Amino acid sequence: MRQLFELCGADRDVRYSPYTWRVRLCLLHKGLDFEGVPLRFLEKEPLEPANSKTVPVLRDGDTWVKDSFDIALYLDHTYPEKPLFGGAIAEGQARVLNAYLDRTVLNPIFPMIIADIVGLQDAGNAAYFRESREQRLGATLEDLQAGREQAVTAFRKTLSPIRAALKAQPFLSGNAPAWADYALMGNFMWARIASPFELLEPDDLIAGWRSRMLDLYDGHCLKAKLGHSGAA
Amino acid sequence: MRQLFELCGADRDVRYSPYTWRVRLCLLHKGLDFEGVPLRFLEKEPLEPANSKTVPVLRDGDTWVKDSFDIALYLDHTYPEKPLFGGAIAEGQARVLNAYLDRTVLNPIFPMIIADIVGLQDAGNAAYFRESREQRLGATLEDLQAGREQAVTAFRKTLSPIRAALKAQPFLSGNAPAWADYALMGNFMWARIASPFELLEPDDLIAGWRSRMLDLYDGHCLKAKLGHSGAA
Repeated sequence: MRQLFELCGADRDVRYSPYTWRVRLCLLHKGLDFEGVPLRFLEKEPLEPANSKTVPVLRDGDTWVKDSFDIALYLDHTYPEKPLFGGAIAEGQARVLNAYLDRTVLNPIFPMIIADIVGLQDAGNAAYFRESREQRLGATLEDLQAGREQAVTAFRKTLSPIRAALKAQPFLSGNAPAWADYALMGNFMWARIASPFELLEPDDLIAGWRSRMLDLYDGHCLKAKLGHSGAA
Repeated sequence: MRQLFELCGADRDVRYSPYTWRVRLCLLHKGLDFEGVPLRFLEKEPLEPANSKTVPVLRDGDTWVKDSFDIALYLDHTYPEKPLFGGAIAEGQARVLNAYLDRTVLNPIFPMIIADIVGLQDAGNAAYFRESREQRLGATLEDLQAGREQAVTAFRKTLSPIRAALKAQPFLSGNAPAWADYALMGNFMWARIASPFELLEPDDLIAGWRSRMLDLYDGHCLKAKLGHSGAA
């Protein structure tokens, strides 16, 4: 059985990694069977065959692949039915979109949910996460998250290119979802599972797109276990 | 002969519209013959068969198409050899990139070259351009352009997703140029032709990409007539 190594909280059913969610959705898109293998931050040994210290890692038979973008390319080249990209031009464009989504969506979301992510962890993993992230970011996680009511307004504005595209088409990839949609949705699944904080206004076109994404594949995203009570 | 209606200055050989440059490069990519038809701002009648008030407009036999993105789609569907997108997924992604490039590249460049654009015009077109743009933007063109030394630093930073992609591949569309490259290059051709102001630092990966784009199709972009002496 294909294995997708992903990040989990103290509860191993709470799986919140944004990049792993991208791959999860790519595998569902292809109709490929897989089992998720949940790992905590301090459990990195299973990733060694892929020479990786971070999830996602995909094991497909004897093939190990790391990095969500490289995994998506691997899947599209190995299983060309139901394309995620469908060709070199879309792959090239996707690298630009990948970098754009990291900077415009993932990086701004991180401080808005960072203290909530600690709340998902057991004591040892919470201590590791707090120490490493506070050192990297130069502030306490609580101070970082405290600015989110202001930060979210700017965040919503910077999503305007996505909103503009969704005026013309239901998905970022056109009339049906594909890699670009899974890439963006991974970020929203990360926030959804880790935090009750709402990133979008209800009448935002992107919120409508997110609802469509939650419903895909028998409501796979909708059914994902949350790490919080869900009350905003 | 296929006709591409484009914007020109007092000198009809100075053709600087960013969106028309995109189409020009798409036509060269496809190897399709065409003649450019230069129009000044106050010469809009020739666009009426396309029901358009703005360039670019393409006339291909009895078919008239307006809007640079729609023209690119038309070309790829009508002449599928040498794809600009090559499929629905790339087209969908391109709509996101199109909106992204407008907001991150075109809109920020405009105030940095706006007074220089007036300098390309004859008296009547200069007056029209100044009046309509100053009313829309709520400032004199000279005041808008005066902030460009500061503005260009922020502009360069916001290009980081493009820079990140160019670390992995020589063109935005992968190993060879296609629509996304022409879309970005249109903006740089607009600035190059209208203004001596340099938007990029010489060691920027994007400047390297721009050099490669200038050389394409027998140096077509490199040979384009400038509306200024070229001295920065």
